[in-house]
Amino acid sequence: MAVNLVIPDRTAVHSVAGVEIGIASAGIRKAGKKDLTIFRLASGSTVAGVFTTNRFKAAPVQVCEAHLALTEGTTNIRALVINTGNANAGTGETGLNVANQTCETTAQLLGLTPQAVLPFSTGVILEPLPIEKIQSALPRAIADLSPDNWFDAAHSIMTTDTLPKIYSTQIKVGEQRITITGISKGAGMIRPNMATMLGYLATDAGIAAPIMNDLVKDLANHSFNRITVDGDTSTNDSFILMATGQSGLLIQSKQDPMFETLKQALTVAARDLAQKIVRDAEGATKFMTIAVEEAGNSAEALKVAYAIAHSPLVKTAFFASDPNLGRILAAIGYAGIDDLDVNQVKLWLGDVLVAQDGGRHPDYLEHDGQRIMKEPEILVRVALGRGLTNETVYTCDFSHEYVTINADYRS
Amino acid sequence: MAVNLVIPDRTAVHSVAGVEIGIASAGIRKAGKKDLTIFRLASGSTVAGVFTTNRFKAAPVQVCEAHLALTEGTTNIRALVINTGNANAGTGETGLNVANQTCETTAQLLGLTPQAVLPFSTGVILEPLPIEKIQSALPRAIADLSPDNWFDAAHSIMTTDTLPKIYSTQIKVGEQRITITGISKGAGMIRPNMATMLGYLATDAGIAAPIMNDLVKDLANHSFNRITVDGDTSTNDSFILMATGQSGLLIQSKQDPMFETLKQALTVAARDLAQKIVRDAEGATKFMTIAVEEAGNSAEALKVAYAIAHSPLVKTAFFASDPNLGRILAAIGYAGIDDLDVNQVKLWLGDVLVAQDGGRHPDYLEHDGQRIMKEPEILVRVALGRGLTNETVYTCDFSHEYVTINADYRS
Repeated sequence: MAVNLVIPDRTAVHSVAGVEIGIASAGIRKAGKKDLTIFRLASGSTVAGVFTTNRFKAAPVQVCEAHLALTEGTTNIRALVINTGNANAGTGETGLNVANQTCETTAQLLGLTPQAVLPFSTGVILEPLPIEKIQSALPRAIADLSPDNWFDAAHSIMTTDTLPKIYSTQIKVGEQRITITGISKGAGMIRPNMATMLGYLATDAGIAAPIMNDLVKDLANHSFNRITVDGDTSTNDSFILMATGQSGLLIQSKQDPMFETLKQALTVAARDLAQKIVRDAEGATKFMTIAVEEAGNSAEALKVAYAIAHSPLVKTAFFASDPNLGRILAAIGYAGIDDLDVNQVKLWLGDVLVAQDGGRHPDYLEHDGQRIMKEPEILVRVALGRGLTNETVYTCDFSHEYVTINADYRS
Repeated sequence: MAVNLVIPDRTAVHSVAGVEIGIASAGIRKAGKKDLTIFRLASGSTVAGVFTTNRFKAAPVQVCEAHLALTEGTTNIRALVINTGNANAGTGETGLNVANQTCETTAQLLGLTPQAVLPFSTGVILEPLPIEKIQSALPRAIADLSPDNWFDAAHSIMTTDTLPKIYSTQIKVGEQRITITGISKGAGMIRPNMATMLGYLATDAGIAAPIMNDLVKDLANHSFNRITVDGDTSTNDSFILMATGQSGLLIQSKQDPMFETLKQALTVAARDLAQKIVRDAEGATKFMTIAVEEAGNSAEALKVAYAIAHSPLVKTAFFASDPNLGRILAAIGYAGIDDLDVNQVKLWLGDVLVAQDGGRHPDYLEHDGQRIMKEPEILVRVALGRGLTNETVYTCDFSHEYVTINADYRS
């Protein structure tokens, strides 16, 4: 029961010059499931990524970070290998060996160095990843490489997602038409014993290696780092930006007048892919945007936004379409801003001003709140009256279905 | 469906010399419900309290803090007035006036100053508290004052609690037999639009005013400040310690050899009353003790304990009796200890060592985990390998019933 998750037609998904995708079935967890996906990037592509901050970092994440650090200018990554069905997390030294072997086999088959390959895994955690199944399926995935496989890849990286998540657009930057296409997966930070949110965003614009790291962090901070379903940060979260340069457009520095245009377009793409994860979240029936304004700094804005977004009481009230203002005010109050003056706080549901001066707005009518709460997409807006910083976080409600999904014994 | 919540017989609840309790029906929210409770303390009693840290602090909490601060040595508090049905929170200036009027009327009727009265409210928030109903019921509550009303008071302070919460004991401290009796209420940090956990603990031991504040904080840090149901800190949380001195025992300082004995006994009492709130938590089917050991300091031990205790994924796994180790390890990993070495972490379910060296223990058998998870009381023990500090937090699982209760439209 995803919330307003739009899937483009297969024909509306643009291939990205310089990116080929191949898909195969390795039978990692279920026989016949397409569970192995490989990206091959043209020479000269730049790549950067952001990864989970969880200290129980999955083996493939550790290998990705090492390979991206090794390539320094981030220009030498040429392939990505993604398996579903097993997260290769909580697997110790053995898991690291398996992730490295995946890179080695891929490198041999494609004529690359192992350090040019990034591995990704998603699925069951604390189980050994069967490397031999991946090794035997890799040649079939490579034989399948084609620029036109984005739509199918959005499906082959799914685990317990109910719908594929794809974004694709073409825009003009200066005189140059460029393509931006991306896919993501995830339906809650962790599914029943299934870990990981993954996001892959590619453009045929060229972006010089030295600015890629800052750019991917900036994109993540406006998209994948601003969504939450249950506050549980997985062991495998990864978001990768790839720029092939095949369109002819090349951005050399942040001072380039076209950098901002491209960044805006990439931000829209990353945010769309991130929001799609929330729209398909476990048991979600509502999509909520929590906008905190007039904060003294970004950290305190996010404290308030996440206090609201993580409160089980707020989330169940949204599930019930109950404009339970007390729960939202209480969450603002315990968010951890020690010198918050509650008399300066204003709260809106949609366009309705519901609270100010430390309590309910005198003109507030319950049925106005009710009207907003019945919508499938709801804006909660808080003004703190402390400064000029704004932050926005995206989340969903908390339903019976969430408990049902997560209380199912692992199967 | 409270978890192993033991209610003593009425005859096993000892009155506390110097404490009288009166109960009446004010009809604040429901006609006929006993919703007004008054404590009268003998002259010479000492009183101290700890209160919510929520910035949207309820009016009665603000008045309590002011009156306790005014009395400096905390020797002049002589009465407590508690109403259910309305929390007098999010009510601005009007709410403060109402809380002060409650104190004034009580003071007039008992021949005290208003500053000798502490007001408490629990119930609906963001609604005006009908002061006239309280004022007209106060004489009836006062007429009811008796040392033998503890058992009934445990009922009259309930809102959506399913069971009353009472602890009572008599012990010898030195040569002196003393009594400790307490009651608490709360069933989740906030019920559907119902706020507040309240705790009242009294002894006929005498405790000198200057050491009361430290003592009540210490007790709270081993009891009411170590429980969590959903992480939502209410606007009204209050815990009050009262020492009448009527037994003849008087503790003058922390150096008194009997101080530790009394403190231990009071800690047991406070912890029991706090745990009873978790046992009666919204939809709880399991009672979980999260013990974090070998931490570098208290703050990091609590970070890990609360990350586990607040994870909806961990809580739903406990509901399902699913020994889902990956979720617990992931919660430890994202708890916010940046330099945590996961290879040093050990995890036990009950007496079963389930994880070490960054992954599952090689000898761990799923059916051993299953056996523990099926119990109604479960110990989760984590050793961080970083130092000598231990902290323990108490929580419950997350069930369908929780969503049902909290998604009910306010009624």
